[in-house]
Amino acid sequence: MVGKEKPSYVLAANAGSSSLKLQLFKITPDNDALIPHLVIKSSISNLSSPPTIFKFKNHDKEGHDVESQELNDVASGIEAFEFFISYLKKDRSGVDSGLVDKITHICHRVVHGGEVGEKGPLVVNESVLKQLEEVISLAPLHNGPADRILKAALKSFPKATNIAFFDSSFHNSLPDFIKAYPIDQKIAKERKLRKYGFHGLSYCWIVKNVARFLEKDPSEISIIALHLGSGASMCAIKNGESYDTSMGLTPLEGLPGGSRSGTMDPSLVFHYSSRPADSDKVSSVELSHAERIMNLSSGFKALTGTSDFSKILATDPPTRESDLAINLFLDRILGFFGSYWLKLNGGRGCVDAVVFAGGIGESSAAFREMIVKGLDGLNGGFDGIDSEKNQEGGDGRAVVYSIGDGIGRSRLLVCETNEELEMVKECLEDKGLW
Amino acid sequence: MVGKEKPSYVLAANAGSSSLKLQLFKITPDNDALIPHLVIKSSISNLSSPPTIFKFKNHDKEGHDVESQELNDVASGIEAFEFFISYLKKDRSGVDSGLVDKITHICHRVVHGGEVGEKGPLVVNESVLKQLEEVISLAPLHNGPADRILKAALKSFPKATNIAFFDSSFHNSLPDFIKAYPIDQKIAKERKLRKYGFHGLSYCWIVKNVARFLEKDPSEISIIALHLGSGASMCAIKNGESYDTSMGLTPLEGLPGGSRSGTMDPSLVFHYSSRPADSDKVSSVELSHAERIMNLSSGFKALTGTSDFSKILATDPPTRESDLAINLFLDRILGFFGSYWLKLNGGRGCVDAVVFAGGIGESSAAFREMIVKGLDGLNGGFDGIDSEKNQEGGDGRAVVYSIGDGIGRSRLLVCETNEELEMVKECLEDKGLW
Repeated sequence: MVGKEKPSYVLAANAGSSSLKLQLFKITPDNDALIPHLVIKSSISNLSSPPTIFKFKNHDKEGHDVESQELNDVASGIEAFEFFISYLKKDRSGVDSGLVDKITHICHRVVHGGEVGEKGPLVVNESVLKQLEEVISLAPLHNGPADRILKAALKSFPKATNIAFFDSSFHNSLPDFIKAYPIDQKIAKERKLRKYGFHGLSYCWIVKNVARFLEKDPSEISIIALHLGSGASMCAIKNGESYDTSMGLTPLEGLPGGSRSGTMDPSLVFHYSSRPADSDKVSSVELSHAERIMNLSSGFKALTGTSDFSKILATDPPTRESDLAINLFLDRILGFFGSYWLKLNGGRGCVDAVVFAGGIGESSAAFREMIVKGLDGLNGGFDGIDSEKNQEGGDGRAVVYSIGDGIGRSRLLVCETNEELEMVKECLEDKGLW
Repeated sequence: MVGKEKPSYVLAANAGSSSLKLQLFKITPDNDALIPHLVIKSSISNLSSPPTIFKFKNHDKEGHDVESQELNDVASGIEAFEFFISYLKKDRSGVDSGLVDKITHICHRVVHGGEVGEKGPLVVNESVLKQLEEVISLAPLHNGPADRILKAALKSFPKATNIAFFDSSFHNSLPDFIKAYPIDQKIAKERKLRKYGFHGLSYCWIVKNVARFLEKDPSEISIIALHLGSGASMCAIKNGESYDTSMGLTPLEGLPGGSRSGTMDPSLVFHYSSRPADSDKVSSVELSHAERIMNLSSGFKALTGTSDFSKILATDPPTRESDLAINLFLDRILGFFGSYWLKLNGGRGCVDAVVFAGGIGESSAAFREMIVKGLDGLNGGFDGIDSEKNQEGGDGRAVVYSIGDGIGRSRLLVCETNEELEMVKECLEDKGLW
């Protein structure tokens, strides 16, 4: 147990394909509970096309602004992690230079848990590390970055507890007939080929916070959640559990994203395979040319030249390309929405709320309004959209806020998701880890 | 123009991957119109696993039963076509042996029209044949059989008009943002990679016949049509035109089928690619091992051992495998249904009917009832299902019949689809062909 005499810090690491987000929390006991206080928020982005941009904010010191600098010698997740740690140790970081030694737990967001991560987070030891390496073959592009940070952290913090949190764990509740692809089930079992689903930390956070907002128990709420970011997915949440979700075996399936195609005819891939596969290797796992195209050079980037959807929305005057990207994204979102509405008995008043989250979902009032307008055809008893609340957003304190008039059967909500804090909270609630 | 002095016959050929269906019509003039009378209905099935089964029925002779025989020396579509023609010429076929020479038009169902077939049917000449050969690269498994029959027919009937009807033409009305995959649009254009959609002859037939049943103009009806056969698809039809459909670049995308996977994470294919591609060739076009698996050894066959869904429904007692196949198929159908319901403004009363067609859709009352039960969550104002009408089916004369109580805003209908007759009718209506 953490006492006053032994302050503890927990670090949360969220490694993406070209960025690393970090949050450091000071932990204080309050009766039986452990309470996290944000001390540092940092990010290193642009890793795939240096100069890398390093941001650092000390929340412990009032008036401490976000520091920002370009780094020329940091070009990988590991280097980014090591740079952050060394920066923490420096006087100019504005934090106690001994703080690093007080980090007792490191929470790592790992995209794909495969079967290893079905049940939830795992304390990482040699055996778990080995199992996780096997999962990489399922999602090399997605798990590679976290795997490398995890190894670096185990080396740099041999005394800390390193815990892997999986984006797929939340979806273990999917029914078998939704999990299964209609392929040979013996091969599917052997090769672990099934729908896993992702953004699970975000959906966990959404369920808990929306339940609190609606003053219900998490097990009592059914919602359609839209995590719309550079990677986008949707989830039909029934009685607090994932019932269906748009991503599949990997995050590629489902909605399009910044550089991802989303669902396409499985045959389409053969029309790329006539080109020779690139010979360079990604984290010792060879990826086919086509898989890379579908994950890294498709989606909005392929349609418009930018993977930044907010820029596409702001294109003025709109172009044929920006219109196509917006209408296509909207169409696919509405497609999943209709599907989940039916599966959750939306017409019978069984959907408590439509929840927007993720970069686009949280910040684009215009796109939220387009989606809500698109739902009109359901005559679903939604809140009417409140343009003012929708435009202004939340007050910066509430994690969940309404953008509707509050009189519908199904509420329209925005939830500011926080995957790093979700991990830390889960870590603090697990008494076995302390 | 056809006169009494010059009777004409039209042959319709529908070539599948392991079967050939043929219908021969005698054409008589009636005022300005040409009327088809079914003379012969024949099928040759089991081509991929001989002995082949040949069926032949002469509808011209009363009391003429269906003949059925096994053939050991017919193992391809061309051989099947040639066998049928030589059989027609024989005395024992019960038809006028000179009839073959009176065939003036042959209608061929071609699955994939690519861009060549966007606008509708085409009279096949050398130039069209060449263009169609290019389309084969988009859908080798699907277009190959028709292409071979087409060539055989051009050779055997040099004086007849051979017309290709495309299953994709009906969907040329899809909006651009539904047609497009979110990939590089320059490559997409060059390689013709977009959603095409299939079962178009069936959907055309459905629109015309359902409109007649509802006593509306085809351009006034909006329906959700389910063509559920060994290949299954769904279509959102808005004002008589295709607005969205579940199949894509090829018939692989969308719903699972007898031996087809339907939509899966596009990454899944890479988990088959580690196995060596088979070296044998299909119609001189090399297909990858994975593509063959997804098209020919997946779907219900992979889940249960049989691709015959009626057998799966009849499994007694149900097994884990049969339950999985049924629930999975139902789930994917409901997914598309919800999507199309939203896109067609179903909640606003804008869907005139839900229409079941295809082998499963027309004959499985039990499965239709499961689907209708699954729609309950929409509270959509559907007809209540009339168990008696649903069980008994139509009276054998009406192409469209209701299985509902007829009091809902959205009717529940069954449409007995007839792709061969659809082609022949379109052929007869095109004055330029006569």
